[in-house]
Amino acid sequence: MTRVRLDLFASLDGYTSAGSTPDSPMGEDWGPLTAAYAATRTFREHVLGDTTGGGTTGVDETYAAAFSEGVGAEIMGAAMFGLHTFPDDPDWKGWWGDEPPYGTPVYVLTHTAPRPPIPMAGGTTFHFRDAAIEDVLAEAAEAAAGQDVRIGGGIGTARAFLLAGLVDDLHVMTAPIVLGRGLRVWDDLRGLETTHKLTTEVAESGTIHLTFTR
Amino acid sequence: MTRVRLDLFASLDGYTSAGSTPDSPMGEDWGPLTAAYAATRTFREHVLGDTTGGGTTGVDETYAAAFSEGVGAEIMGAAMFGLHTFPDDPDWKGWWGDEPPYGTPVYVLTHTAPRPPIPMAGGTTFHFRDAAIEDVLAEAAEAAAGQDVRIGGGIGTARAFLLAGLVDDLHVMTAPIVLGRGLRVWDDLRGLETTHKLTTEVAESGTIHLTFTR
Repeated sequence: MTRVRLDLFASLDGYTSAGSTPDSPMGEDWGPLTAAYAATRTFREHVLGDTTGGGTTGVDETYAAAFSEGVGAEIMGAAMFGLHTFPDDPDWKGWWGDEPPYGTPVYVLTHTAPRPPIPMAGGTTFHFRDAAIEDVLAEAAEAAAGQDVRIGGGIGTARAFLLAGLVDDLHVMTAPIVLGRGLRVWDDLRGLETTHKLTTEVAESGTIHLTFTR
Repeated sequence: MTRVRLDLFASLDGYTSAGSTPDSPMGEDWGPLTAAYAATRTFREHVLGDTTGGGTTGVDETYAAAFSEGVGAEIMGAAMFGLHTFPDDPDWKGWWGDEPPYGTPVYVLTHTAPRPPIPMAGGTTFHFRDAAIEDVLAEAAEAAAGQDVRIGGGIGTARAFLLAGLVDDLHVMTAPIVLGRGLRVWDDLRGLETTHKLTTEVAESGTIHLTFTR
């Protein structure tokens, strides 16, 4: 059965990176927030195309390897795709080059910049939707054909799905850093541990992996 | 050498309990926040006087047993002592009965209600000080005679010492719950992991123990 999955990065104080710019699409705190994930063998191979077998192989890698397994469709916000950073470029195709690391349909939520689908190399096709998140989720679930739908971010889109109760599996990678600034991950989620079963695990990197599952 | 220690309780979303009232001195979220600590053998024996040997004996107990070891003096805020809840009772002696579980000098910070020292059974004496936190700390360190000074809370007092850079050892017990409300623990502490060495550990209860040490 299709499940709705969401993976987030947070600091100890509950922030994720803010401040997307053309030079720093995820904001300047994104590097420290995601350092342990970026060091894993799966990330290096899957995202960077490093086939030398380098990268960490511990607890962080276990979660990283699961990250892309079984995902049949993705949903992301307009800012995550880059529509807010490059609002006047009708040919903008996202941050990920000619062959994005999705390999599935990707539904981009946008109220202001709907456009025709963009097929990319490697099986990714970007679709643009101006619709309620429940409707886009239904379409993505149909496209996933029994595999999972992943909510790809950014944090605003992720929280919209969380607050609407649409997420079955939430994974929060908490980096062992205090940011003191950014976008707040946790607001208005009181009692999430009562609607979902929570597990906590610490990786060799000091990263705290939280999973909420229902 | 005297070290300055601080132990805090936080939720996953970085809150601690708010809303002290006469019936609920620590606020209604205090119970869930501190459940794992309250279940330890040390807490049951040391605070509740339960000598039957009951209570948990895992990772939470290891931290709980260390909590009171080597403390020679304590500092707490006026609210923590109860001065804000019972402002008009000059005979108020705190929440802890005739024999508080401190057994040391306890310095209560108050701008509005200085009073003579209150000696209690079991070695606790409450002193009331209207002075800068650095000065009260110096007095407490002197009284501790080589043992540590513990900052006992509440969160406002704790954060004042943290933000002033006066805390050597911070221990945050993060309960596996999302509160969505309360008093914020982490504000304005960006980079704390660079001035202190951070360790993370998960207990059997799901509690995440963070220690920041310099």
